[in-house]
Order: sequence, then structure tokens, then C-alpha cells
Amino acid sequence: MTAAQVAALVGGRLVGADRSISGVGPLDSAERHELAFAEGKVPEDNKAGVLLVREALPGRTCVVVANPARAFARLLAQLFPEVDGLLEQPRGVDVDQPAPSTWVETFVHPTATVHPSAILGVSSAVHAGAFVGAWCQVGAGTVLYPNVVLYPGTIVGDRCRIHAGAVLGADGFRYQSDPKGPQKVPQVGRVIVGDDVEIGPNCVIDRAFLEATRIGDGSKLDGLVMVGHNVQIGRGAVLAAQVGLAGGVKVGDGAMLGGQAGVAEHREIGAGAMVAGQSGVGRDVPPGEAVLGSPAMPLRVARRVYAVLPRLPELVRAIMREKG
Amino acid sequence: MTAAQVAALVGGRLVGADRSISGVGPLDSAERHELAFAEGKVPEDNKAGVLLVREALPGRTCVVVANPARAFARLLAQLFPEVDGLLEQPRGVDVDQPAPSTWVETFVHPTATVHPSAILGVSSAVHAGAFVGAWCQVGAGTVLYPNVVLYPGTIVGDRCRIHAGAVLGADGFRYQSDPKGPQKVPQVGRVIVGDDVEIGPNCVIDRAFLEATRIGDGSKLDGLVMVGHNVQIGRGAVLAAQVGLAGGVKVGDGAMLGGQAGVAEHREIGAGAMVAGQSGVGRDVPPGEAVLGSPAMPLRVARRVYAVLPRLPELVRAIMREKG
Amino acid sequence: MTAAQVAALVGGRLVGADRSISGVGPLDSAERHELAFAEGKVPEDNKAGVLLVREALPGRTCVVVANPARAFARLLAQLFPEVDGLLEQPRGVDVDQPAPSTWVETFVHPTATVHPSAILGVSSAVHAGAFVGAWCQVGAGTVLYPNVVLYPGTIVGDRCRIHAGAVLGADGFRYQSDPKGPQKVPQVGRVIVGDDVEIGPNCVIDRAFLEATRIGDGSKLDGLVMVGHNVQIGRGAVLAAQVGLAGGVKVGDGAMLGGQAGVAEHREIGAGAMVAGQSGVGRDVPPGEAVLGSPAMPLRVARRVYAVLPRLPELVRAIMREKG
Repeated sequence: MTAAQVAALVGGRLVGADRSISGVGPLDSAERHELAFAEGKVPEDNKAGVLLVREALPGRTCVVVANPARAFARLLAQLFPEVDGLLEQPRGVDVDQPAPSTWVETFVHPTATVHPSAILGVSSAVHAGAFVGAWCQVGAGTVLYPNVVLYPGTIVGDRCRIHAGAVLGADGFRYQSDPKGPQKVPQVGRVIVGDDVEIGPNCVIDRAFLEATRIGDGSKLDGLVMVGHNVQIGRGAVLAAQVGLAGGVKVGDGAMLGGQAGVAEHREIGAGAMVAGQSGVGRDVPPGEAVLGSPAMPLRVARRVYAVLPRLPELVRAIMREKG
Repeated sequence: MTAAQVAALVGGRLVGADRSISGVGPLDSAERHELAFAEGKVPEDNKAGVLLVREALPGRTCVVVANPARAFARLLAQLFPEVDGLLEQPRGVDVDQPAPSTWVETFVHPTATVHPSAILGVSSAVHAGAFVGAWCQVGAGTVLYPNVVLYPGTIVGDRCRIHAGAVLGADGFRYQSDPKGPQKVPQVGRVIVGDDVEIGPNCVIDRAFLEATRIGDGSKLDGLVMVGHNVQIGRGAVLAAQVGLAGGVKVGDGAMLGGQAGVAEHREIGAGAMVAGQSGVGRDVPPGEAVLGSPAMPLRVARRVYAVLPRLPELVRAIMREKG
Repeated sequence: MTAAQVAALVGGRLVGADRSISGVGPLDSAERHELAFAEGKVPEDNKAGVLLVREALPGRTCVVVANPARAFARLLAQLFPEVDGLLEQPRGVDVDQPAPSTWVETFVHPTATVHPSAILGVSSAVHAGAFVGAWCQVGAGTVLYPNVVLYPGTIVGDRCRIHAGAVLGADGFRYQSDPKGPQKVPQVGRVIVGDDVEIGPNCVIDRAFLEATRIGDGSKLDGLVMVGHNVQIGRGAVLAAQVGLAGGVKVGDGAMLGGQAGVAEHREIGAGAMVAGQSGVGRDVPPGEAVLGSPAMPLRVARRVYAVLPRLPELVRAIMREKG
């Protein structure tokens, strides 16, 4: 691929001599046969053959665009074609050759299991070892990576990526005391996932008691996240790795939860709220508010508390002296 | 199904005109063709066609029982038949038709792998992609959901549910220093799970060094729980999602651990003790005691500490002023 | 097997009458037909038929060695042969019979999926339901346990054990704001795992944006660990269960992280540093330093803080009285 081809692809302007690249690299280690992008200043010793930048550099081959990061993302999507959601060639692809068709009609791997009553959308993919139970629905363009499990009745929207090992729709965790010992209450609801949702590897999303555990359009869950029964997640929410939401929690549109944060039963995280990593939320968080700590405090309060916390022993000594 | 049939099924009394239902719903959103149950007061605007309640309401079709929640759980079990532990029809089943036989003899899915030396109990089910290693034993009526992995020698009792992706019996994590670098010490014990145990999706239960990691009868583990080597869990314990127990921990009968709680190596959680969510337990917790915090404190102490914690910076300023 | 055979096997000296054993057991519960090892004093009521010890005991059958624990580990490796990384006979093996060949040439289970472009080393094993994507490399003697998933381009070194359900090489979690809404930035790097690495069950290791997420030689990850994109882990690091490392974190050689600890984006844990369980690291930790707490403090400071923390309410009252 040449710099001129890159410029055409991302709608940029070639400045300097055209040249070939065979791959891409990070700004600090790209080599002469590679392209790198820069948001800010390019280091003196940079060796990249082609630079994707906002302003041309003298003596260098540059592709000039308004937004280098966005242009780079588009270039990557072109350079590294996917088939059924999996990268076909992880590095140094020669795109002078015609790209393979990047998508097939409803791919189901021979080792996957799809119940006859399940419905798979066009251009969806069910990879090796994945399981799609009775009455499930999988939307158009959605990819179920290897060993994903959808329990019966689970509904996943369009263009979702459910990563390897994620389990959607297992029973919530609910027992009814009974003279014969605790009896399991059948959880007959389901999980409903919207469009453009990404669910990370080995996540667990439990089904609801009667209605649905819901994950709204465009929300993103990183790996090993636990979503309890009857949780309602809005649109565009972001849950970092290992977050845990207990049963009945509500998460508003665009809320963000940091890694390992936990939210107690039935609590509400308002739209646009921010829960810092490892926080433990035992109360409702109003829309737009940022909280930190276990138990969670408003971010500003928590920062001050944690700043003085190491001095607590000294404080105790000071007081004891005065009283003594 | 009619209200009279429901009454017969749960041992209740029909009050009001008999009528048909086609499903069930939550009290606040059930419609005219659905049944809902109520423990307390029924809202004025409730629309459910049939109510499962303690006391009849004038002008409504009611099924009157002593314990509506328990009766509802029984009704659900009838309405939503399972085959091999999986719901067959997730919603609105017509139970006027004879239910399909809800269980078959030792179901093994064609993509499951069961070692010839393993023993499967009657009416047990090994779903798609599950793996049962050499010398394993799986009890009667136990369900291994898709992609469960039992390493060699694992023993699971009767009527257990091991949810999708759970891994039982992997090596504990133990190294022996050696002139040639750390050498893995073979973990040749196993995992022994009692009867009526439920293990959530993607849980990890490591096998013991020499003897057994044990999970007692009737204990319930939610999703993504980690149980280290040689852990001993008693009967009827409840571990919420993402709990982690390090090697050699003991959990007594009926103890409860909240989500994301962790217990350090060899510590003991007494019978009936309660560990709040996200707590970090580095000492033994006596039977019946409740603890909270990381590190864990008695619940009453922790509540008082966390109540004043946000005022710590103000406190420091006050003292500094006095000293100044 | 006889005590004399054990002595020959571990390079020890038989003291007392030779006798047969049929298995091994823990020191406190081994029976007359079993061997036990002791580092220190052997209890009076010990019943083991053969003792593996530093100094002979009068009237007992002993195998005397310099390092009983190390000798015991070697004995276990002999007593419990593995085939393709799985124990063949979990208990009481009769080693008078010739052991089965403990390894075969590149085992691939019929239900595993290996892309034709992937390379498998000699004596490697890909167990049931495991998935090896395009352009992956798996080293010699490495075992992929059931249902492990390697996304395309993942490289695993020699003699590694990747436990059941672990997922290596899924997309990192990176979005680019765009007028059309957040656009996923293709993550076209990979995961590179060194030699002699152990990765626990259901771990998640994300691939890098452009280069590689790396796990160095001899590092050990317990179950349910999350490693974000572009993380760099050195040699011989130990990560306990449920640890989470955000994107770009660096962990130095020999560093140790306790269970459920978390490290924020781009932070560095120095070589030989120690992060206690449940700690939350939001700053760099210098080599050799030990930290505890969320947010993490130097270990000595944290211990003092946590020692006085329960007295905080009393302190507040004391100050209020004085001011009042």
C-alpha cells in the first residue's frame, strides 16, 4: 500500500514523496516500512516511513488530515479485514490484493449448538462451541465469539459483539424459604440486549425473575463483568472490567463505572454519573455525580478523605497527648 | 389455563368469577390475560386478570392462599417446564396442552466430552461443550450447563446445577522453591460438591493439594466466584457474585458473603456469619458475627466509622487550628 | 510401591523396615497404607505407614531427605502421571505397573478448533472445545485446557498451562468519538505469552492496540484475573485470583499482587513489589515496595491507619466535646 492510497482512503492530502508501507506501528517504534499517526508533536528520532498528521513535516512523507486518530482507526479497519468478527490477518497485510469478502451470511460453526427455535439475523456469526438456546434471537451483524452461551429466551440486538465465554441468561439467584428448606424460585424472565452493544469475555448477565434484564443500545461491558437479575442498563453506558451489579440495579444512559466497582441491590446510578474503580455503591447516585470509595462518597469529598487518611495515626497520637 | 386450575394446582381457593390466563407478570405491569401475586396491598390501578393473594379483593378474580410467594413459585415451576435443566418455553406457555416430559435419562449432548471412566447419575444432563474428565462422578438429577469443565477426579452430588462456563478441579496454585526455579507442586486432591448445590456461571473452584476442596449440601454460589484450593464450605452457605476465597479458607454452615467480598488464606468464617459486600477478611469471623469493610470490622463499628469518614478532613483542620 | 522404591526415586535413605504404600496423605490424616511428609515435628498419634522426613524417627519406617517438601513434590509427579496435562488417575495409583506414556505428540481433541494457519509445538495439547484462531502459535509442551480461546494472532510460549475457559487476545476496549457516535478502534495488536507461564481458569487477557500485551517467562496468574490491553508483565510475577490490571499497566519481574487487587491505567508496579489483596493502585509503586489499601498506601502506613480506623468515631466525639 502506498501513502497516496492511504490519503485516498482516509480523505487526506499527501505531502512529500509517495512511498510504500507494509504495515502500521506506534509512533515511538514504527519503522521505515510502517505508517504511524501523531496527535501532537512528532519526536525528532521518529523513523516511520509515512506519518498521518494534522500538519505536514518538512522532508517527511505525510498524509494530512483534520483528525489523525479517527483517520487511523478507519485505516486499521481497512488494513485488517475481519471475517465473521475475527481478524483474518493480524499484521502487515498486503492490501494491494483484493480483500477477501469480510462477511458471510449467518455463519454457524460446526461445533456450535443452535436450537431449532432460535432466530439468527443476516450476517450474524455463531463461532465454535457457542450455544444458542431455545427461543433466542440474535440480531443482524451480531457476532457470538467462541464458547458464548445464550440460555433459552435471550434476545441480542443488531451489530453486537458478545466475546468468548460470556454467559447470558442464566438463572438469577433467588430462593424462597419453605418448610422443606430453601426452594429455588424459577427465574422465567430473560435477558434483552440492545443494538451495538459489546460484552467482554467471560461476562455473566443473569436473566430476570419475570420480565427482563436489559442492556441498552451502544453500551459497552469489559471482561468479567457481573450483571445480576432484573438489572436495567441504559444507552451508551460503559462498565469497566470486573464491575458487579447486584439484582435490580439501574444504570442510566452514558454512566461510567470503573474497574471492580460494585453496586448494591436496587440502587440507581443516574445518567452520566461516574463511579470510580473499586467503589462500593450502597446508595443512589444522582445523574452526573461522580463518586469514589467503598462506601462511595462524592468524588471531591473522597479525594480529601483519602489525602488525609495516611495521617490518621499521627492525628490520634496528637489528640491522645492533649487529653493525656 | 384457568384461575380454577391455578387454585387446584397450588392448593388455594378461587374467589370471584373463573377466567383464563395465558401467562404471568409482575404486580405493577401484569395485564388482563395474566396472573400476578401480591404479598401485601394490591395497587388500585392493577390490571392483572387473576390475583394470587392472602385475602380476596371484592370484584376481582382471586386465588387465595396462605403464602402467595411460595404458591407463585410452584405455579412457575409448572408453567415453565424444563428439559434437562433448560427452560423449554420461556414465556406464555399454554399449559392446557400436556407438558412435555420434563426430564430424560442421562442426557449427554453430542458436543460434550465425557471420559469413559466417569460416572453419570440417573437423570443427569451434560450439555453442549461440557467436559467431564477421568474418574469424575456426577450425581442424580444434576445439570452441567454448556461449557462447564470438570477436571479429572471431581465429584458432584445429586440435584446440583453447575452453570455455564464454571470450572471445577483445576490445579491450585502452589510452587516449591527449587535450585532450578520455582517448581509446580502437583495438586493431586480433588473437588467434592455436595447435594443441592448451585454454582453460578464462570465460577472457578480449584482442587485441593492432597485431599479435597469441599462445598457442602445446599450451598449456593453466584456467578464469577473464586474458591481456592483446600477451601471447606459448609451446608447452606450463600456466596454472592465475584466473592473470592483464598486457599484453605473455611466457611461455616449458613454463612453469607456479599458480592466481591474476599477472604485471606486459612481464615475461618463461622457458621451463620455475615460478610458484607466488598469486605476484605484477614482474621477469623466468629459464628453469627457480621462484618463490613476492608479490612473487615464488626458491622456496628464499621457503620459508625464510615458515617464519620467523610468528616475526616474537617477534623484534621480543626485539630491543626488548635495546635497552630 | 515400597518405601525402598520411594527412597530410590527421591534420592533418600530408607531407615526402618521396608513396607508397601498404596497412596499419599496429609500428615494429620494419612493412614497406615499411606506415605506422608513432614517439614517439622511429627505428631505422636500420626498413623502414616511411611514418613518422608529430615531425621529418622525410632520405630517408624522413614525415608530421610534434605528437603522433604521438594522430595514429596517429585514423588507426586511420579505417582500421578498426566496425559496431555490432565491427571490420568487421581488417587492411589499402583506404580508397580509401568506408567502409561505421559505425553503424546501434539494432541488436538476432535471437538477443538484449530485454524489451518496456526502452529502447534511438539507435545502440545489442545483439549476439548478449545479454539485456536488464525496465525496463532502454541509452544512445545504447552497445554490448552478445555474451552480455552485464543483469538487470532495470539502467541503462547513453551511449557505453558492455560487453564479451562481462559480467553486470550480479545479486543481491548477502546472507542473513538465520532460524529456518528463512538466508533470502535480496531485493536490489531496481539497477546504474547512467554515460556513456563500458568494462566488460571476463566482469565481474560486482552490484545494490544498495535503491538502486544505481554506476559513474561515464568509468571503465574490465578483464576479470574483480568489483564487489559497493552499490559506488560515481567518475568516470574505472581497475580492472585481476581486481580485486575487496566490498560497499559506495567508489572515488574517478580512482583506479587494479592487477590482482587486492582491497578489503574498506565501505572507501574516495580520489580519485586508487593500489592496486598484488594488494594487499589492509582500511582506507581517503586521496585521492592509493599502497598496496601484502596487507595494503596505503603504497607507500614496502611497497617497503622487500619489499626486506628475503628477508633475514628470515638475520636470525633472527643474533639467535638473539647470544641463544644
